[in-house]
Amino acid sequence: MFDPVEKLKEFIRFQSISADSKYKDGMRGAQEFAATLLSSLGLKVEVIKTELHPIIFAQRGGDATWPHVVIYGHYDVQPADPMNLWKTPAFEPTIIGNRIYGRGAADNKGPLITNIAAVAELLEANPKLPLRITFLIEGEEEIGSPSFPKFLESHRDRLKEADFVYLSDTALPSTDQVVITCGLRGLALFDVHVTGAKGDLHSGLHGGVLRNPIQALAEIMATLHLPDGRVNVPGFYDDVLDVYPWERAELKKLGADETAYKKFLGIDDFYTVPGYSPFEALRFQPTLEFNGIGGGYQGEGTKTVIPSKAFTKISCRLVPNQRPDKIKKLVIDAILARTPKGVTVEFVDQHKGDPYVVVPPGRSNTPKDQSRVLAAAFRATDAAVKEVWGKAPLYLREGGSVPIIADIKRVTGLDSIMLGLFLPEDNLHAPNEGFNLDVMKRGTETTKRVLAAVAKG
Amino acid sequence: MFDPVEKLKEFIRFQSISADSKYKDGMRGAQEFAATLLSSLGLKVEVIKTELHPIIFAQRGGDATWPHVVIYGHYDVQPADPMNLWKTPAFEPTIIGNRIYGRGAADNKGPLITNIAAVAELLEANPKLPLRITFLIEGEEEIGSPSFPKFLESHRDRLKEADFVYLSDTALPSTDQVVITCGLRGLALFDVHVTGAKGDLHSGLHGGVLRNPIQALAEIMATLHLPDGRVNVPGFYDDVLDVYPWERAELKKLGADETAYKKFLGIDDFYTVPGYSPFEALRFQPTLEFNGIGGGYQGEGTKTVIPSKAFTKISCRLVPNQRPDKIKKLVIDAILARTPKGVTVEFVDQHKGDPYVVVPPGRSNTPKDQSRVLAAAFRATDAAVKEVWGKAPLYLREGGSVPIIADIKRVTGLDSIMLGLFLPEDNLHAPNEGFNLDVMKRGTETTKRVLAAVAKG
Repeated sequence: MFDPVEKLKEFIRFQSISADSKYKDGMRGAQEFAATLLSSLGLKVEVIKTELHPIIFAQRGGDATWPHVVIYGHYDVQPADPMNLWKTPAFEPTIIGNRIYGRGAADNKGPLITNIAAVAELLEANPKLPLRITFLIEGEEEIGSPSFPKFLESHRDRLKEADFVYLSDTALPSTDQVVITCGLRGLALFDVHVTGAKGDLHSGLHGGVLRNPIQALAEIMATLHLPDGRVNVPGFYDDVLDVYPWERAELKKLGADETAYKKFLGIDDFYTVPGYSPFEALRFQPTLEFNGIGGGYQGEGTKTVIPSKAFTKISCRLVPNQRPDKIKKLVIDAILARTPKGVTVEFVDQHKGDPYVVVPPGRSNTPKDQSRVLAAAFRATDAAVKEVWGKAPLYLREGGSVPIIADIKRVTGLDSIMLGLFLPEDNLHAPNEGFNLDVMKRGTETTKRVLAAVAKG
Repeated sequence: MFDPVEKLKEFIRFQSISADSKYKDGMRGAQEFAATLLSSLGLKVEVIKTELHPIIFAQRGGDATWPHVVIYGHYDVQPADPMNLWKTPAFEPTIIGNRIYGRGAADNKGPLITNIAAVAELLEANPKLPLRITFLIEGEEEIGSPSFPKFLESHRDRLKEADFVYLSDTALPSTDQVVITCGLRGLALFDVHVTGAKGDLHSGLHGGVLRNPIQALAEIMATLHLPDGRVNVPGFYDDVLDVYPWERAELKKLGADETAYKKFLGIDDFYTVPGYSPFEALRFQPTLEFNGIGGGYQGEGTKTVIPSKAFTKISCRLVPNQRPDKIKKLVIDAILARTPKGVTVEFVDQHKGDPYVVVPPGRSNTPKDQSRVLAAAFRATDAAVKEVWGKAPLYLREGGSVPIIADIKRVTGLDSIMLGLFLPEDNLHAPNEGFNLDVMKRGTETTKRVLAAVAKG
């Protein structure tokens, strides 16, 4: 008998911090634990080496006519520091009431065990279930999945014959309301470096003669938005997918509270592009943000220097159907066109990720060629959530980015059904991470029903 | 017999770094050395305690009808690091050819010994010279003279009966051309801090909803200059003293080379306010510079954060008759008026200094009430420079700031004659500081002639 809570406890004890090579024992432990667990369910497990942390590729084969689901998850976790802020040991799972605490409890060990438990129970009850299942469990999610695209390319043929991807690595606004994430924003990141004189200069001896690169940078940056908040770069919005009325209606049902959100952020006024509420803007509109800026003297007191250099770090959040390379080029071209004489500008490319959208069946913009199995899986998920949670799920695009979802779509053509299982109080990436054991139970039941319904029969 | 070079060597050996309390022995040694030296010339020496480093106040009294000169200098030096870039030991004076190397050789120990030597030789030749002399030698010049204004206030009565101040702590463009500095820019410095949300935020979860303080700061900063380089703050130029035709003519005689200056700065284009050449702009026009900027993530790679805070450090160089407090208020009011909703702005006041100007006799704008002794001292300086250096000095305002000169004027009413003695190659504030011994000799001879001519005769 598979005890999900005991398995989760075991899983949490492995200190699988992918960002820090000191934790390679924890990484190997977690990887072997997950591989063994899937093997014990009768799956054929391959551990695929990458340049960093291996990917677990575990398959339950079957007849080629059976539907085929790919279940994604990750066995790595965020670093646990600052350790002194943890009320229970970060890597010693501790149950208090209906919650289990420990690093990775919610991101992603708890939700992954939830889905593994569903498969275990399902196969125990029906060993002949006509469903092919592939678990894809990576160990680099918390460091940006650097090995994942290469893995997808090399396993394209084995993946593209699947029907859809199912995962639980997104959020649940409350235990009353399940959300199926139907879209994610993409990313385009780069740094801008502005250089003036060849060295730092005394502002008394030379001030008034040359362009200060901090001033030039600020003047360039100030051109990149219109006063109403829109990005002021020609072509930036050309490929933006319109928001559909059903999406706005779905979001209204979430009933999010603007006053409470302002209070949470600690601001008096929102700053959103025209025509969008804040909750819409962060899902349906792209952004151009300055994540950092630096130049000249930043210490205490003063240093009357005209610095030689200044820089800013830019990230654009992209929405379907913007493409990161195109957006980078548009912004860089705008900056180059707006760079004044007397300074030079250089760019350092950083990473990128495509935005993603999947439309559930029966909507005004559902693709006419949507696969029958994907549509069935969406309908099964909807029905299961209604039965298990007592309320229909909401289908929402989200503001964050999970580039691997778009990568999977791009390389294999597969769409993803993202069932959110972590709650706002679960403290992801923070001390005192926890996971709700009632959510775990309901999640397992939901996934069981989805997979059972999708299975050929 | 007073040997200026030997005295300078002794003086340099004291590691009198005022910025670092580890060097308090060096500070005391240099102070005692200078006090003893002045005492040995027959001056009555007082060592005036301050909150940090004492001020030497050494007087040669005399009949109240005798003219009275105050000779200013400082016994502290800049830190010597990076030590590995020195070709000779920083605190072991080394003579190579006609130059002496060591920290403080040019700033200000060499020029100060030059002037002390002039007094020594003068008094040796004519012990009854009808001239009152006050040496004022501070130990905090390299850290902004924090104790000096208070000292001036407490010694106002003993100083204001003097006729003028004489000092050598400014530059000589070449050994062919002496410059008498007739004006200095002032300073007004403060920091601007912009705050958005109460904490750093994930740019995916919240991007598009609120004002990024880096963006707000850049947009505010970009309003502070017009495209032609002028400061875009109402009232900023109201009190700017016009440049006089004789000043432009004098500057032309300097024959400075714009192409060489561009090359020195490493820029392709100057950026000066309309109507001024670069050499004019840095002397006759005020500036608003950003000396530093910071906010958000500045490390390698990326962090997709919307930061809570950003800041910049502003310094305005002021020209006569701008006042720092008024300018600070004008700029701060402009920033407040231009701060968008959604962020708050705070200011941290930093230091300030008045600009200074003195007009030699016989110019179109010489004050009608200029003191007879000051006018005589200027004429004597002009004559001495012609005789000793073979060419008349130039009378130029400079772009840098020496706030104590304006403080002396404000508190005591005294004007200053600034005879430049350090050369571009003297590496002030840098490794391999040196001082030209021919300049030292000519400087001594110049000062002797000035003081002899000013003495009642």
